[in-house]
Amino acid sequence: MYRLFEMPASGNCYKVRLMMSHLDIPYERYSIDIISGESRTPEFLNLNCNGKVPVLQLPDGRTLPESNAILWFLAENTAYLPQDSFERAQVLQWMFFEQYSHEPYIATSRFWRVFADPSKHESELAAAHPKGEKALRVLERHLSTRRFMVADSYTIADIALYAYTHVADEGGFNLECYPAIRRWLQEVASQPGHVTICG
Amino acid sequence: MYRLFEMPASGNCYKVRLMMSHLDIPYERYSIDIISGESRTPEFLNLNCNGKVPVLQLPDGRTLPESNAILWFLAENTAYLPQDSFERAQVLQWMFFEQYSHEPYIATSRFWRVFADPSKHESELAAAHPKGEKALRVLERHLSTRRFMVADSYTIADIALYAYTHVADEGGFNLECYPAIRRWLQEVASQPGHVTICG
Repeated sequence: MYRLFEMPASGNCYKVRLMMSHLDIPYERYSIDIISGESRTPEFLNLNCNGKVPVLQLPDGRTLPESNAILWFLAENTAYLPQDSFERAQVLQWMFFEQYSHEPYIATSRFWRVFADPSKHESELAAAHPKGEKALRVLERHLSTRRFMVADSYTIADIALYAYTHVADEGGFNLECYPAIRRWLQEVASQPGHVTICG
Repeated sequence: MYRLFEMPASGNCYKVRLMMSHLDIPYERYSIDIISGESRTPEFLNLNCNGKVPVLQLPDGRTLPESNAILWFLAENTAYLPQDSFERAQVLQWMFFEQYSHEPYIATSRFWRVFADPSKHESELAAAHPKGEKALRVLERHLSTRRFMVADSYTIADIALYAYTHVADEGGFNLECYPAIRRWLQEVASQPGHVTICG
């Protein structure tokens, strides 16, 4: 059976649970408390030498870190990844956008506000906010003429970007100004097999 | 013909030139001065609404941003991307590591020191340095038992990580402490079709 090593409240870990639910793959969950250091023990570093969750362990024992690489691995040869090579590259384009231009500001602001002491991160929150708003403007522009991120169908690019966008308010981002994003969030949440981040 | 919109000194843009050289694909180069704002004009935002280089334009006019998505697009069905699905996911694992845990510290430090006024970025350089060293330790540990990043063969994971690692000294990182990385840099530079970042 698959095993998922995760911090349940992490959007990066939620991506994997959402994909597993869509594909109806059974798995066991192992909670890793990153705040108390459980992701930096020698045992955990043997699973992922970069010391981050999520890590997916395959039934044969091999392990795969990095949320978006896990999504790709699970989605190959399913409806969640297009067959066309340019569309596949566009899926990756948006997953790299998510990890470089979106997550470091939107997810990190949520972490500082919800899981840390925000008064100790005021300058970082102030610096991250305009960069997170820029990422949301890029998404809004893209989604204003499209139903989904790529290829007019629900793909792992949507899953990757949904994970932290739908809880952006917890990081201090107001989605009222982004109608296309709000419409898209509803589309994603209505897909068969959808589970919430609390699920 | 392919067109590459790039800042020539950028490691992210160099990745694409290195891949094109390995595959012997002709292309035209268009220099975009990101410092003077050429990546934020309406014309450029039509190529990439995220306002970043590189962007690859295909002969049919379609455009693809994000260096590692471009590498994947060019490498599919070539020797630079494994056929095995787990190895392909591992290639992505290391390309996401590069964009999330390596480039934001090692490339950004180089940018502040070489292309900006480092005296204006002292606190950012100090904050980035230990995180860049951590990324180098992860690479050193991984490469100490392997010839290349994935599958014992030269792949786009090596290209993605070589781009900024081989100029890490320009960002203030001393590679003398990382013998496995230095051995691997030589392996990469000896591959057929290799070109330098100045090429």
